[in-house]
Amino acid sequence: MNLILLRNDDFDDEERVTLADARARHVLTVLRSRPGDRLRVGRLNGPLGQAEVLSLAAGRVSLRCRFNPTPPPRPRIDLLLALPRPKVLKRLWAQLSAIGVRRILLSNAERVERDYFDTHVLEPETYEPLLIEGLQQAQDTWMPAVSVHKRFRVLVEDELDGLSSPDGARFVAHADARHDPPGVAATTRQALVAIGPEGGWNAFELDLLQGRGFQRISLGARTLRVDTACVALLSRLHDALASAGEPENGQEPRP
Amino acid sequence: MNLILLRNDDFDDEERVTLADARARHVLTVLRSRPGDRLRVGRLNGPLGQAEVLSLAAGRVSLRCRFNPTPPPRPRIDLLLALPRPKVLKRLWAQLSAIGVRRILLSNAERVERDYFDTHVLEPETYEPLLIEGLQQAQDTWMPAVSVHKRFRVLVEDELDGLSSPDGARFVAHADARHDPPGVAATTRQALVAIGPEGGWNAFELDLLQGRGFQRISLGARTLRVDTACVALLSRLHDALASAGEPENGQEPRP
Repeated sequence: MNLILLRNDDFDDEERVTLADARARHVLTVLRSRPGDRLRVGRLNGPLGQAEVLSLAAGRVSLRCRFNPTPPPRPRIDLLLALPRPKVLKRLWAQLSAIGVRRILLSNAERVERDYFDTHVLEPETYEPLLIEGLQQAQDTWMPAVSVHKRFRVLVEDELDGLSSPDGARFVAHADARHDPPGVAATTRQALVAIGPEGGWNAFELDLLQGRGFQRISLGARTLRVDTACVALLSRLHDALASAGEPENGQEPRP
Repeated sequence: MNLILLRNDDFDDEERVTLADARARHVLTVLRSRPGDRLRVGRLNGPLGQAEVLSLAAGRVSLRCRFNPTPPPRPRIDLLLALPRPKVLKRLWAQLSAIGVRRILLSNAERVERDYFDTHVLEPETYEPLLIEGLQQAQDTWMPAVSVHKRFRVLVEDELDGLSSPDGARFVAHADARHDPPGVAATTRQALVAIGPEGGWNAFELDLLQGRGFQRISLGARTLRVDTACVALLSRLHDALASAGEPENGQEPRP
């Protein structure tokens, strides 16, 4: 835990927080903080900051927080992921929020097993703590928005442009012998990447995606497990967007 | 299992193989093969090929194999990894061989807990099946060479140039606000990347690495878990080496 993430209902007033859960245990038993110590904190979907430890008692920690004037930049990548096996998805949640994803669209596809949709790994009570674990690891405050879509065609044709900017770059990953970095124009501010199920997208699904502006992007000749492929591809896209020019202080880069 | 990997002692003669282990169970119960079916096979540290199913009986599968004249290209990246927690290392093995690593050097560092070296996850009986699982996933035959180094300084000063080409590019990963792709010269054929322990390399270790030609490479502002960081960084390095020019048919690229 490199950051303690705070929700609105953790606050006693504008600045003061009292914790009595796993975060308090972390401060007491891992950090072994003392009154006066300073800790990194963040406000969920808000700014980062510093907290001063005011008092510690059996299982309770009281903090006074100061936050930066602005939140950290929001991740600029959305992920459209064919719903993976529950075991793989469970491993993925914290890694996705750690690496930085704005929105996670979990979708059906022909090669997705129907019973994957019944898993508790798709319930907010299961995945929110895992997403928060990843944010606290990566020192970010932006909780990815998660949605589940049982109808692939409806998602792609009717809902996608409302969920992820139609002006962003769109990629669909596929296995291929080439291993080129994703090409992103210097003006690109957002990207959406679609990663298929273990057996790949079928021809209809690929056509539908390509018809909505998704360019094919290679994952290299090696067939990777879905969780490995997600981390590998998101990392490459972060590189590509960074090379395309990070917006500074909200300014658009020169054309 | 996208490939069935065969060892020398699996062969009855030049072409014929009889399997009676997990690979046979995979052919019988997952692939549900029948006599005459063709399967993708590979020879450990050798060529890929095709096998014809000759016969199937209770728990036993007999194959006739034909191999390509040359093995697939060997991965061009070596990894120097400060020994992570056993739980993390266990998750990593299959991902490392899937993403493609030539050599894995597991090293001590100041911030590595001493008892990590006593884990069974460091024993070939534990990690070889996991490495093979990754190779079978990625359809590669090259088993990474694994070595464990309890003395960091001896490794870096005395052993490293013999283990990993001193002419290759060398990188040491560190957290930083920048997120630039690793720069690799067009003539670079090999890379070695050093990834530190959870608390990072200490100043002495960083100096030692930089003194042996390791350039600092950013992991971005986000602190990633060691397994996520490995996959992310190896993927970016594969991209960088691919952009630098893939050698084709053993030819060197033009200068």
